[in-house]
Amino acid sequence: MTSVTPVGGFKSSVARTLADPDTPFAVVDVHKARRNVERLAARAGRLGVGLRPHVKTAKSLDVAALLHEGPPCPVTVSTLAEAEAFADGGYRDITYAVGIDPHKLPRVIALLRRGVTLRVLLDSAEQAEFVAGAARRAGLPVPAQIEIDCDGHRGGLRPDAAALLEIGRLLHEAGCLDGVLTHAGESYFAPTAEARRLAAENERDSAVTAAERLRAAGLPVSTVSVGSTPTAHAAEDLTGVTELRAGNYVFFDLVMAGLGVCRLDDLALSVVVTVIGHRPEYGWILTDGGWMAMSRDRGTAAQAQDQGYGLVADLDGNLVPGLVMTAASQEHGTLTVRDGARLPDLPIGTRLRVLPNHACATAAQHHGYHVVDGTRPTAGAPVVQAYWSRVSGW
Amino acid sequence: MTSVTPVGGFKSSVARTLADPDTPFAVVDVHKARRNVERLAARAGRLGVGLRPHVKTAKSLDVAALLHEGPPCPVTVSTLAEAEAFADGGYRDITYAVGIDPHKLPRVIALLRRGVTLRVLLDSAEQAEFVAGAARRAGLPVPAQIEIDCDGHRGGLRPDAAALLEIGRLLHEAGCLDGVLTHAGESYFAPTAEARRLAAENERDSAVTAAERLRAAGLPVSTVSVGSTPTAHAAEDLTGVTELRAGNYVFFDLVMAGLGVCRLDDLALSVVVTVIGHRPEYGWILTDGGWMAMSRDRGTAAQAQDQGYGLVADLDGNLVPGLVMTAASQEHGTLTVRDGARLPDLPIGTRLRVLPNHACATAAQHHGYHVVDGTRPTAGAPVVQAYWSRVSGW
Repeated sequence: MTSVTPVGGFKSSVARTLADPDTPFAVVDVHKARRNVERLAARAGRLGVGLRPHVKTAKSLDVAALLHEGPPCPVTVSTLAEAEAFADGGYRDITYAVGIDPHKLPRVIALLRRGVTLRVLLDSAEQAEFVAGAARRAGLPVPAQIEIDCDGHRGGLRPDAAALLEIGRLLHEAGCLDGVLTHAGESYFAPTAEARRLAAENERDSAVTAAERLRAAGLPVSTVSVGSTPTAHAAEDLTGVTELRAGNYVFFDLVMAGLGVCRLDDLALSVVVTVIGHRPEYGWILTDGGWMAMSRDRGTAAQAQDQGYGLVADLDGNLVPGLVMTAASQEHGTLTVRDGARLPDLPIGTRLRVLPNHACATAAQHHGYHVVDGTRPTAGAPVVQAYWSRVSGW
Repeated sequence: MTSVTPVGGFKSSVARTLADPDTPFAVVDVHKARRNVERLAARAGRLGVGLRPHVKTAKSLDVAALLHEGPPCPVTVSTLAEAEAFADGGYRDITYAVGIDPHKLPRVIALLRRGVTLRVLLDSAEQAEFVAGAARRAGLPVPAQIEIDCDGHRGGLRPDAAALLEIGRLLHEAGCLDGVLTHAGESYFAPTAEARRLAAENERDSAVTAAERLRAAGLPVSTVSVGSTPTAHAAEDLTGVTELRAGNYVFFDLVMAGLGVCRLDDLALSVVVTVIGHRPEYGWILTDGGWMAMSRDRGTAAQAQDQGYGLVADLDGNLVPGLVMTAASQEHGTLTVRDGARLPDLPIGTRLRVLPNHACATAAQHHGYHVVDGTRPTAGAPVVQAYWSRVSGW
């Protein structure tokens, strides 16, 4: 049965197929996830750069196992809870890519003492002093990266900021300077391949410029880290970059499909829901999957084609023409048709799969994933190969 | 220390005060929650109607314990996971207020066999036949309510629908007819007290009209259930109604404050976050609380005053003038000022409390609540009295 291994939480007695668990629940098509993983791995190989996947989307050791053959690969995390869970799972090279809160340094030190290379991120002298102080008190270096702002998206220092060298020196004196990291967050709004190629170029240039400034000041820079799912799939030259980060790409979602970073057929995550009512006078089909199952994320609202709360497929994963989840309350979804499609006849009890706007947000609403392989046709409902649990909390 | 009892998940060794747990985490001010509970209980008493609180907001046995003195009260739930957890907690009268999916009937039957009066909801003959069939096979009645649509919000039958009597008969023949239920979902968009009073009148009229039609056809109706947080606080006459439902009111939120259903000072739920960066050139303060901590809910975007992802208070709960969380990524929040306020000086490491748009959605992002009492001033950070865990999943 391929390499998909049932894990601890596998509810084999309950869930033989997607017809078995009570809805709503999340499903991962492992064939699509694996194909997405292979696509970016091949790209990174061609670009001659290492990959450090971000595990914040799936938050699952089982999904992460698709990312590497042999020993665990370097990963990026968004919480210390993820870092701790991945450390428990044998991962030894972890970047915590959210600006460090000094209060969290004891947990960072604890991971370092366990032999995990836990790299932290910062963009101020205050944080650098906290990190340097914690490293001195603990008697071990805390590898720290300076966050570079390449596109005004969020945090970070501009590559030409005066504070860059001051922070570099503070870290270097404490043995903590690891490198620089940037994230082209604005690339999620870059609607053409050319715009994303330029965003990737700018992302690289920003990181490399910052690294060169530090090096020119005599400060050693090991890591030059860049990445986002859109730029990782658009970069043509990563000279000077030591590693590429991306996370969403393992599952992809409607936002990424809307940008053109992937095809609809690449979406590996969906949510199974059940039809529980009809309002033909309004053109509504009601389901038991609301925002609790899908999240409130409406990422495609800002795109050329607003996909509501998601596109609707049958239980095998084939899109139902024109059917969109257009409204949500906590445990109710409303489906309507567009593009002149006829409202399909879906009796009470019919199961459907909703493809989400934003995989990171939708996955976060679930404890884990029922795993299927869409390339293995079955007479009845798709066979569940495994149940993969998620890390949650902070 | 009052009646707030530490429960299983209480992290007393970790969390003495709100300065202790790593951020982000959810906080409940038990004094405000209790005051909100007392307010609606007093209203229901004056209206002469029983209360059946909806526990889908807090999803916590500990929060529900604030709702009653003595034995458990009737409750409403949004998932069977809640029904099962509340049954385990001693609740014996539970309405599952989402249209029944036939696949879930075995869990309904199992709860009934445990002695729990688990009432289900439906609005079609197909569902009534599934319920009647399950009841006959199990040899016990499955109390079922017919969902009435009072305002075109979601599911339900119009009070004058022909199908009402057919469904009533199908249920009655199987000994399953319990009554009717309606929910004025559109009242969440009623911006004046008068509009909400009218919504409450219409909600009552719709339920009572449907009940009278069934009775006139010789069909017994025990339960006539109405409610939503806005209408429950606006109703002036509930003649013919047997019970009032509301859920959000225990915590309230910015949507409810924006409508005028409560004051900002009534908001009992907040999320503690930490300042992790500054972008003075943009007027941004960055925190470690993003949409994972707040949810993607932007309920106030449709109101006169858009509150972004939330209003920002200090750790004691006092609003910081003009400070709003205006942007969110997964683990980052961006705070900005408005109304001509000066950007406050909040160093790295400063803890803040963000008041959410939508308590149901924000609470769902957390495993539980750190409980404080805002009326008990302390020299340092507010003292944590307990940790209350949540039910999750389906």
